[in-house]
Amino acid sequence: MFLDKLDWRYAAKKMDPNRPADEAKVAKIVDAIRMAPTSSGLQPFHLFVIRNADLRAKLRGAAFDQPQLTDGSHLLVFAAFDDYSDARIDAVVDQHAEERPGTREALETYYGTLKSMYLPRTAEENFDHAARQAYIALGFALAAAAELGVDTTPMEGFDPGQFDEILGLRDKGLKSAVILAIGTRDESGDWLAPLKKVRKPMRELVTELD
Amino acid sequence: MFLDKLDWRYAAKKMDPNRPADEAKVAKIVDAIRMAPTSSGLQPFHLFVIRNADLRAKLRGAAFDQPQLTDGSHLLVFAAFDDYSDARIDAVVDQHAEERPGTREALETYYGTLKSMYLPRTAEENFDHAARQAYIALGFALAAAAELGVDTTPMEGFDPGQFDEILGLRDKGLKSAVILAIGTRDESGDWLAPLKKVRKPMRELVTELD
Repeated sequence: MFLDKLDWRYAAKKMDPNRPADEAKVAKIVDAIRMAPTSSGLQPFHLFVIRNADLRAKLRGAAFDQPQLTDGSHLLVFAAFDDYSDARIDAVVDQHAEERPGTREALETYYGTLKSMYLPRTAEENFDHAARQAYIALGFALAAAAELGVDTTPMEGFDPGQFDEILGLRDKGLKSAVILAIGTRDESGDWLAPLKKVRKPMRELVTELD
Repeated sequence: MFLDKLDWRYAAKKMDPNRPADEAKVAKIVDAIRMAPTSSGLQPFHLFVIRNADLRAKLRGAAFDQPQLTDGSHLLVFAAFDDYSDARIDAVVDQHAEERPGTREALETYYGTLKSMYLPRTAEENFDHAARQAYIALGFALAAAAELGVDTTPMEGFDPGQFDEILGLRDKGLKSAVILAIGTRDESGDWLAPLKKVRKPMRELVTELD
């Protein structure tokens, strides 16, 4: 149960390099990302699943030297679309029309309206919108990992420009949005592990309007 | 299990107004939102849990008249911080220092650096950053609801300016980022329910770097 793991999960600050995450579980986490909902079904991001140790060492140098990048066994990079385009939206229409016979006309109307809203926006606005969708998928990844008892550390502390450079994202029309280290917590070496989990109390975070 | 519900969940287009979501389950969904991780633990959003029918009817008028706002039993509005500020970050330091005795000095150093990065940015950049954190929590809410068998519809199709006006968010330093209708699917009236779920194939969404 995901809901039983809300307190168990935390952003591990130290992972044990000798205890890699189970590949079958990582595959389930990746599938949860694939199944996450996104605005109008656009799935406007690409996911890099990085096991290569040399590459992770290089990326660690562009992520304030945070050890989870190499002590973990997998690094996920969520790279969002740098912009929307006719071609990118048409690809969504085509796939939906193929998998849902008889819907092409309605799809073209719906996504035609979407294009008229999105394509005039700046690339930055569209990247931002795409990045938010990647964050829903990040939430799904964190939930899936917690359910499976796999440790993760979501991170914004990296240099997106350097990541884009190292991974060759610019030519692919992508920009790195957020990353997730996957591995196994090393509690004995983690200053955060023994500390109480802190969250705002309900009354401060939530207003009920009945 | 959340992972068993990835295919079951979908963005219900029609909900049954006579079958409200169970309150105990909604409370668990809200708690998952509270427990969701956010960048540096800032939790930079406020959540409105709206049961009031008149208010939901009014908001529906600012959300392209989408029926889930009133056919569902609860509407969640994720309202992100419109900007970061000294006071908002100090509140995080104070709570952490109180709940984790002996950590104040380290907290002040860490969050001092954070302030030097965030406070010079534009309000728009900071709102965007805050909104992304709300989207992680949205992912947690969707995962929790799926696990509990509760239907939801995440929506960006609303007028944020009108929502902010109706809910009086400006004075609170908040801006609506995304909304989530909660209720019970009415499959007989939902054009989407019988259609195959469409997602990009793994080879298109994911690159493995071994």
